[in-house]
Amino acid sequence: MYHFTALITLLAILMYFFTCINVARSRGRTGVKVPAMSGHPDFERAFRIQMNTLEWMPIFLPSLWLFAIYISDAIAAAIGAVWIVGRIVYFVGYSKAAAKRSPGFAIQGIASIALWAGALGAVVLRLV
Amino acid sequence: MYHFTALITLLAILMYFFTCINVARSRGRTGVKVPAMSGHPDFERAFRIQMNTLEWMPIFLPSLWLFAIYISDAIAAAIGAVWIVGRIVYFVGYSKAAAKRSPGFAIQGIASIALWAGALGAVVLRLV
Amino acid sequence: MYHFTALITLLAILMYFFTCINVARSRGRTGVKVPAMSGHPDFERAFRIQMNTLEWMPIFLPSLWLFAIYISDAIAAAIGAVWIVGRIVYFVGYSKAAAKRSPGFAIQGIASIALWAGALGAVVLRLV
Repeated sequence: MYHFTALITLLAILMYFFTCINVARSRGRTGVKVPAMSGHPDFERAFRIQMNTLEWMPIFLPSLWLFAIYISDAIAAAIGAVWIVGRIVYFVGYSKAAAKRSPGFAIQGIASIALWAGALGAVVLRLV
Repeated sequence: MYHFTALITLLAILMYFFTCINVARSRGRTGVKVPAMSGHPDFERAFRIQMNTLEWMPIFLPSLWLFAIYISDAIAAAIGAVWIVGRIVYFVGYSKAAAKRSPGFAIQGIASIALWAGALGAVVLRLV
Repeated sequence: MYHFTALITLLAILMYFFTCINVARSRGRTGVKVPAMSGHPDFERAFRIQMNTLEWMPIFLPSLWLFAIYISDAIAAAIGAVWIVGRIVYFVGYSKAAAKRSPGFAIQGIASIALWAGALGAVVLRLV
């Protein structure tokens, strides 16, 4: 069983869920009505925070689980926790200004690549 | 094995697939050409239906499976069936008017949160 | 264990990752600044390549894994490899012109449907 990875998965979903709620709240603050997805820079940044987190989900989640299965539940969860922290830093930074999105993005990117590369290495080792 | 959850997963994908086809058909009806993603309110609503369904996939699918693994295949699948029904109500309502998207959205949201919260409780119980 | 399917999953993520990087590079070439998601046809096509690949991830990945689990790791991975090839053809074609996106799209669509239908058939057989 992969209890730690399961926990990190659910916490990552919670973090992502907040980026979705933030878009809905941003509609109220900026007056951008559904189904429009543009019209105010604050709204557009809130939407991009959600979208970018969504865009990385298919990179992060399968890599996280393959890393957990092929290498270690605890190590996968630890790197996954770094991903969540990076996403929170990204959320806070990008909410202030587009230029402040980079540090959090880098943290979550490095964590994702570590999970992906570790899983790839372990899978290839089993196949050769 | 998790046969019921596997079946619900495939049916959820089918439902989502229809939201994708609906966007392509809406391009034909409204004259919004690729790669544009706006230009006619009917098209924009069709696109938002697909996008919102996509946006909830990383919330729904991992929560569904962790609930199935940690609690019960049959209960996970039953709640997952409610999610699909909510998504169909959302699809039909939002296709008519933006104001009619709320009931279906609420149904699928409650189903998702039930899966997520149940899985989280079960995972935490194993870890403590 | 599903080593071949795990490998194809990681390669599909790599291909998707390139569509993400391509959007960032396209911003540099076309001058479309974040958080804007439109403003130049070349950028909009690059964004749609990424988005469409993302949109099909929840169709492809769960179908791939359910096919692997219920039928065969090797066959799932072989069809998954066809999906990746279709996605590369789609990427190259759509990057040139919107009209050239169809062949690659068809290849990946047929591969996805084969995985989905195979998995559905196998799941239903177990349930009846």
